Amino acid sequence: MINFNEEQMIKNGDAIYSQRTHIETISDTLVKDGFDLLFFTSSGGSMAMMLPFEYWINQISKIPCGSMISADLTAMGCNRITDKTVAFLTSKSGDTPDTLEAARFLKQKGVRLVSVTGVKDSPLEKLSDFCITYGEGRPQELVFYLLIGRLLYNSNAFPEYPRFADELKNLAGALVEVRKQADPFCLEYAEKNCREPYHIWVGSGDLWPLAYSYSMCTLEESLWLKTKSVSSSEFFHGTLELIEEDVSVTLLMTQGPTRFLDEKVKSFALQHTNKFTCFDTKDYALPGISNSFHSLLSPVIMSAVLQRVSKNMESVTGHSLDIRRYYRKGGY
Amino acid sequence: MINFNEEQMIKNGDAIYSQRTHIETISDTLVKDGFDLLFFTSSGGSMAMMLPFEYWINQISKIPCGSMISADLTAMGCNRITDKTVAFLTSKSGDTPDTLEAARFLKQKGVRLVSVTGVKDSPLEKLSDFCITYGEGRPQELVFYLLIGRLLYNSNAFPEYPRFADELKNLAGALVEVRKQADPFCLEYAEKNCREPYHIWVGSGDLWPLAYSYSMCTLEESLWLKTKSVSSSEFFHGTLELIEEDVSVTLLMTQGPTRFLDEKVKSFALQHTNKFTCFDTKDYALPGISNSFHSLLSPVIMSAVLQRVSKNMESVTGHSLDIRRYYRKGGY
Repeated sequence: MINFNEEQMIKNGDAIYSQRTHIETISDTLVKDGFDLLFFTSSGGSMAMMLPFEYWINQISKIPCGSMISADLTAMGCNRITDKTVAFLTSKSGDTPDTLEAARFLKQKGVRLVSVTGVKDSPLEKLSDFCITYGEGRPQELVFYLLIGRLLYNSNAFPEYPRFADELKNLAGALVEVRKQADPFCLEYAEKNCREPYHIWVGSGDLWPLAYSYSMCTLEESLWLKTKSVSSSEFFHGTLELIEEDVSVTLLMTQGPTRFLDEKVKSFALQHTNKFTCFDTKDYALPGISNSFHSLLSPVIMSAVLQRVSKNMESVTGHSLDIRRYYRKGGY
Repeated sequence: MINFNEEQMIKNGDAIYSQRTHIETISDTLVKDGFDLLFFTSSGGSMAMMLPFEYWINQISKIPCGSMISADLTAMGCNRITDKTVAFLTSKSGDTPDTLEAARFLKQKGVRLVSVTGVKDSPLEKLSDFCITYGEGRPQELVFYLLIGRLLYNSNAFPEYPRFADELKNLAGALVEVRKQADPFCLEYAEKNCREPYHIWVGSGDLWPLAYSYSMCTLEESLWLKTKSVSSSEFFHGTLELIEEDVSVTLLMTQGPTRFLDEKVKSFALQHTNKFTCFDTKDYALPGISNSFHSLLSPVIMSAVLQRVSKNMESVTGHSLDIRRYYRKGGY
């Protein structure tokens, strides 16, 4: 298994989990102080990582929630935002310019900011009312499962939280097992697809943000592969016409309520292309975590699987995931 | 000028405008009865056509508004929706299955439905509390400029409405002039780009929905051209890495507050590809309509320009815009 350090992964997960009390205290304070809206804003892959949590809030509660890409928010505003709003922002570096601008924009409106960053004492942390720093910790979603889970619990929408949070101790380890289980299939996928001139990636519901961001931030940005991402709900309203027997189509299959939309795409693609792959979160076990939480964890399961696609793509093509033509090299 | 019937276009516009009183009465009734949310839902290109109106409401008022793709709404629900909500749905045929499902879903929750259809007595009309039928009328956005404009006026957010609505009488004619002005450039664009293996389309704000839907519903669905659409706000978070000197990039430039994001994309693309085209709504005059409304009409201006791209693409490639491999042919 290429580029895989089990011990480090567990250590990184523990580094986040050790902050459970700190994270829960933030949620408790937010609920105690009250809010009129939970708002998510960031850029690119960081934004996409948070969107399943907006989805979750919407699914199981009446709590008002919303989201906007940071650059859009700063430019266009959002008429739902008031000085009673709480915003969540995340940035690995803690200095993504668009996200910082959005933080300043929100701050001026009296919004309380909760930021989640990789780097300590970042500019984003300095603008925020609360900050959680995960360092090299993965998965970063663990921060949000605790933060939003506790918040939903405090709002009487997620009574299972205490057990869920206890079991999250096992998440990093369970995702190590997911990676091991997925790797042979992902290697095969990488070998078959790494030279394809064009990719269509499809997903829905809690996995649509990942289909979107993996296409943009890994396939395009890191691997320079031309990729169209489209949601299962929109696939039949246009993109289907591109499918021919030699067009590569990849589907991320959720366990949530939009699964039947994914199934329609799967059934269509199986009929019309020879280059169809389906990654189904249902196929992967999460040792140490109850089955009843499996679906809720779909986005991190799929992220772990796709990390094995990336690592194998890198190895098969010899194209380092870290090369950039332009990003953060100036000139724009 | 290929495939262009000026007289018919004016007649079609008049057919919508003649319903002004009917449309305004609907808005008056909605405001008189009150609502807690204006919600837009539909599928594909029809959905994208409505999104600039959600954008408009958010820009100039505090009226709660939101939107979801119909298939997503039916599957996932939306926790903002109550029996005081008003939903807008549009479908040319009036029988798009996803949109009908969403209408039934909303109806069950006591939501009032306003539908906009091409065909009279459609299944969607039968489910709706109010319906506006535009027949062959274009642009369909005219219905929404009147409907939402009047609604904003009644809510004290758009005092200019009476003059705006009067001037909209000239819209169809003004868009005929836009098409005439745009055609030579669009023909040149079609000739240069119709054989490109891959396209990147970029837009932002009120034009992002059009960049998204033109890519999906015209370039992909009607012309079978592989296209990635990405918003100007996200372009620099991944897709930029695909740009090389021979990659075709097309930018739809808005006059709204996200214009500076488009300008960043333009400046980058001009440096890094020889195949860059910018369509800028600012370049097109709207005779008979005040300059102060020009920006608000950006989406229909750009739609008219892009219609000339489609017609010229069709003529240059000999690929009819009406051929489909799969859509509405069964088998999925």
